[in-house]
Amino acid sequence: MSDLHLGEHISRRFNEELEEVRSKVLHMGGVVEEQLANALRVLVNDESNLARDVLEADAIVNSLEVEIDEECTRIVARRQPAATDLRLIMTVSKTITELERIGDEAKRIAKMSRKDMDGVLNDEVRGELTHMGDLVREMLRLVLDAFARTDVETAVTVVKADRKVDKKYKKIVKLLIDQMSKEPDVIPAVMKIMWAVRSLERLGDRCQNISEHIIYMVLGMDVRHIKLDDVLADIEAQMGPE
Amino acid sequence: MSDLHLGEHISRRFNEELEEVRSKVLHMGGVVEEQLANALRVLVNDESNLARDVLEADAIVNSLEVEIDEECTRIVARRQPAATDLRLIMTVSKTITELERIGDEAKRIAKMSRKDMDGVLNDEVRGELTHMGDLVREMLRLVLDAFARTDVETAVTVVKADRKVDKKYKKIVKLLIDQMSKEPDVIPAVMKIMWAVRSLERLGDRCQNISEHIIYMVLGMDVRHIKLDDVLADIEAQMGPE
Repeated sequence: MSDLHLGEHISRRFNEELEEVRSKVLHMGGVVEEQLANALRVLVNDESNLARDVLEADAIVNSLEVEIDEECTRIVARRQPAATDLRLIMTVSKTITELERIGDEAKRIAKMSRKDMDGVLNDEVRGELTHMGDLVREMLRLVLDAFARTDVETAVTVVKADRKVDKKYKKIVKLLIDQMSKEPDVIPAVMKIMWAVRSLERLGDRCQNISEHIIYMVLGMDVRHIKLDDVLADIEAQMGPE
Repeated sequence: MSDLHLGEHISRRFNEELEEVRSKVLHMGGVVEEQLANALRVLVNDESNLARDVLEADAIVNSLEVEIDEECTRIVARRQPAATDLRLIMTVSKTITELERIGDEAKRIAKMSRKDMDGVLNDEVRGELTHMGDLVREMLRLVLDAFARTDVETAVTVVKADRKVDKKYKKIVKLLIDQMSKEPDVIPAVMKIMWAVRSLERLGDRCQNISEHIIYMVLGMDVRHIKLDDVLADIEAQMGPE
């Protein structure tokens, strides 16, 4: 085999390895998506039988995290990736940490919801929670899509969506505080709902974190600590007029 | 310069670069430690004038995170680090993400504490909070020390210490729920304290995460998803009888 062919061969193998890693991340994302969907059904629809599924999926998520991280280290050690590929690998490594913790939050929601809150979740809060759950699930779906297609625009949409989640979160917290004031007897039960809502809000934050990693990977600028509006202006400038 | 000397020269420069990164992480850790100390003084000693310091330090922490991450990518791209050094660099990258979020939690504590909780924090809760704050500060100090000296034993101590923090957390939550039940008027104010306590508990979790990254880096096994007791048994077996 000539050097040129050898070079091509190595580079093809390298791209295949990157693709494998990427598809493993998406697989992991799929498992976490299902964990979240089930946790929300436990919380909002009282389908407590699903809590066990959420807890059991944890082992899969954890072993995928370890496996992907090992794979990333191996690839970097074996190949000598250029800066762009390196950035992809660093992004993968940070993304799977976030995904694993999204799974943890889903677990917290599923655990908290099982006991002690019977009859305490009123229709108004349930409605708002359903809506908040839909928003967060959509964020997770979009951010995985943004990762799969390395799509900055979708990643930006996720960052924007987090604002809606935060607004909804504040509304629900207010409702729950009102409920506690009116019915002091159920405070411990309402607090369980409160923690679940908090976990949901944090879950949205973690989707936003992943989006920021993706934007950083693509644009090579660090948006984690820049105002969102400035980032949007920058992206629009780069894309030119529509 | 002979090839041998060139090789030595490159390897010395590489080690110097790693040392620089390591010392930057410790510098970042120092800033975060001060953020936490100040946030706790805002919360427990009502020194609300310090809240501004906590918020201002955020900019320093953020820019250190970006700087260190860039530096890590540059080092990996320029050198061809062996697996061990690569693991160090991946650990650095994950550690600074945790440190930055510890700073965020400190900011949350400092922000929440400023308003609305006057006269609501009773002596018992204040005493417990002071103790919990001391425990978490000690965790952060120890984990930075473990990082500086790549010391697995200290990292394990941190993981153990998190159990104490969790216990204290549960105790305080119980006290606050009791208080809300007895004095429904102050529920919104007590909830502010509740969120601060939650942030403190999460902060302990993040110190534990860093410890796990360090243990993983040194022992090359993934302890994030193994039971602590098994890890301890493993470490003791490796160290032999004392």
